[in-house]
Amino acid sequence: MRTEIIAVGSELLLGQIANTNAQFLSKELAEIGLNVYYHTVVGDNPVRLESAIKIAKERSNIIIFTGGLGPTKDDLTKETISKSLGKNLVFDHSALESIEDYFARTKRTMSENNKKQALVIEGSTILKNDYGMAPGMALEADQTIYMLLPGPPSEMSPMFKNYGREFFQNQLGIQDKIVSRVLRYFGIGESQLETDIQDLIDGQTNPTVAPLAADGEVTLRLTAKHTDEKTAQKLLDEVERKINVRVGDFFYGYNETTLINEVMAQLVKKKKTIAAAESLTGGMFSELVTSLEGASQVFNGSIISYTNEVKKQILHIQEETLAAYGAVSEQCAKEMAEQVRKLLNSDIGISFTGAAGPEQHEGQPVGTVFIGIADKDQTNVYALNLAGSRKGIRTRTAKYGCHYLVKLLNEIE
Amino acid sequence: MRTEIIAVGSELLLGQIANTNAQFLSKELAEIGLNVYYHTVVGDNPVRLESAIKIAKERSNIIIFTGGLGPTKDDLTKETISKSLGKNLVFDHSALESIEDYFARTKRTMSENNKKQALVIEGSTILKNDYGMAPGMALEADQTIYMLLPGPPSEMSPMFKNYGREFFQNQLGIQDKIVSRVLRYFGIGESQLETDIQDLIDGQTNPTVAPLAADGEVTLRLTAKHTDEKTAQKLLDEVERKINVRVGDFFYGYNETTLINEVMAQLVKKKKTIAAAESLTGGMFSELVTSLEGASQVFNGSIISYTNEVKKQILHIQEETLAAYGAVSEQCAKEMAEQVRKLLNSDIGISFTGAAGPEQHEGQPVGTVFIGIADKDQTNVYALNLAGSRKGIRTRTAKYGCHYLVKLLNEIE
Repeated sequence: MRTEIIAVGSELLLGQIANTNAQFLSKELAEIGLNVYYHTVVGDNPVRLESAIKIAKERSNIIIFTGGLGPTKDDLTKETISKSLGKNLVFDHSALESIEDYFARTKRTMSENNKKQALVIEGSTILKNDYGMAPGMALEADQTIYMLLPGPPSEMSPMFKNYGREFFQNQLGIQDKIVSRVLRYFGIGESQLETDIQDLIDGQTNPTVAPLAADGEVTLRLTAKHTDEKTAQKLLDEVERKINVRVGDFFYGYNETTLINEVMAQLVKKKKTIAAAESLTGGMFSELVTSLEGASQVFNGSIISYTNEVKKQILHIQEETLAAYGAVSEQCAKEMAEQVRKLLNSDIGISFTGAAGPEQHEGQPVGTVFIGIADKDQTNVYALNLAGSRKGIRTRTAKYGCHYLVKLLNEIE
Repeated sequence: MRTEIIAVGSELLLGQIANTNAQFLSKELAEIGLNVYYHTVVGDNPVRLESAIKIAKERSNIIIFTGGLGPTKDDLTKETISKSLGKNLVFDHSALESIEDYFARTKRTMSENNKKQALVIEGSTILKNDYGMAPGMALEADQTIYMLLPGPPSEMSPMFKNYGREFFQNQLGIQDKIVSRVLRYFGIGESQLETDIQDLIDGQTNPTVAPLAADGEVTLRLTAKHTDEKTAQKLLDEVERKINVRVGDFFYGYNETTLINEVMAQLVKKKKTIAAAESLTGGMFSELVTSLEGASQVFNGSIISYTNEVKKQILHIQEETLAAYGAVSEQCAKEMAEQVRKLLNSDIGISFTGAAGPEQHEGQPVGTVFIGIADKDQTNVYALNLAGSRKGIRTRTAKYGCHYLVKLLNEIE
């Protein structure tokens, strides 16, 4: 099956937005085994759209359209397709009802134009729009499958995920359920992780194992297919186990979670409070924690000691420590964590000090980082040498702090 | 002139990346008056690429290709185009030299494959690649203009901006220089700003005035065309003056600047140091400041007082203030700014307190915000009622802090 995605909308040709719909659909289609051969973008112009349809018919068996289903005069996708197929547009009563519902629910006034959105190509299967007014459509004609989806990604993606995908699976007799799971890793480079599990990546066809690296983290996307969803989940469990026997030390969570979410979950679970002393990271760790709802349950506050004076006056770091070892040192990180824990009356104190660049700090090369974590019994200090930009070093430092915190919190009662 | 952009690359059809190159080029082309009628994406497949070229030739006068200029076997763009035009590929010596240079500079070993990148279509104008190895090409054949650009955006965009645009201007006899200027505003909504200058937006054709809103800020992009660049700049000056007579109170800077950049520039210029007491924003302001190189010149540190205990113990906010007015109050914001200024021995103290949501804080509705700014002579407190998500409220609070700081710093010597 040769698939083509046609996006309709002059805003794309003016460069106001990127065609992220085509990206989303291409990924989704690859998962159900459909190969995309072309993306086309055409403006809100019926003549050019008609010619794009003609070209697509000749080279593709499946044509998916996004955009041009709105209520205005510019929106001509279904009008142009129905004309090119020699089919009529008819009112779909359930679509009309859900449009009326939508207006009632959002307390807006419905215009005559909006009714136009309930017109559908005769004989098509309606794809419900749970987040907007334009229904989607799918039909087979002249051995070609046509699918029409709305343009706004917030409407298009759930429509495809919930209804469009199923249409293809039914139409093409695909019995398999497809289940995915994302495994998240931190503290290991992409190439190291890939080397460690290369045989599993190469040898696996069901589930497939696809690595992706971003922002200092590595994820593995596992995708299994089976007619029975439970069996598909079991296939995922098995390969996950095999993978984590080798790289489980760096695993921190599933799917959409983040390191700071895991820190928060552990702090809540273990009923611990935390405070931070930030130098290098300048508030980044605190900002991450407080970006989460309910942060006040576990986070007392921080002292951002960007100068040695503040380290001495507010954090009460010993003059001797700074004189003998400097601010970028294991000793300073240790005292910072212990002091902030005590001063802010918290169960845990975490500290960040180092040289973010672009210049050396106290003679320490850029990327030298110390992270301290203190609880009532002990203090651990972690030394790192990070490469990269100022931004990269700061971001990864904050993430390493989360990573060590999760490890420590996992170990305590 | 009908323009088409053809992106070559299977990674696009697999949904691994979005076609942001087409977006970038569409914007750039619109600025020099070229209308884009189609975007096409095709994989690394010579047969399908050839057919895409054939279709494009029939419907477009200008065809711009991105991608497929790399050293691997998959990279076939120039091979396929030269074949379809009946032209040879020849070694370009300056391209070969700059490839050799590139390897010498980055201390990597050059492979035989890399030499392939110096092959160009005979008779084409070479577009220099300042950020990579693959040279771009441009040529006219059969009344059609062809331009070949590399796929990585970091190579493609500077190549087009610096060389590609000029090629079109010369080729099409466009005498006009095009100059743009972005004006940045904060503290005024998009619809208000548009209402205030609607007649200027509608009435202006040279320069054009295009508003855009993002992250609580509004920008106006002014674009002027003239054969003489100085005259084009004067046209921009004139319309800028007209606009800022009306909305200049909210103007804060040009082009790529940010509010925090303006704060930093003012602090450096006025030789002032700053410290922050953050409650609501939880470190966001401090993180913004310290994300900038040279922050240590002006930033002493912060106290993030997320609990009342920390406000009392570390910031020494009076028990009576918290009892009588609460932490989310003008009085508390005032004391926080004054205390952090004094404790951290800084010229300026800034404070942020409020209710970020999702729940009320001390009975104050979500979005209630107080920002205090103290210097040696006085303390100003600003009260805001912000709508939106937790993230939106926190982000705009930090930005409002920057906005007020810039206003105050502008006024002092």
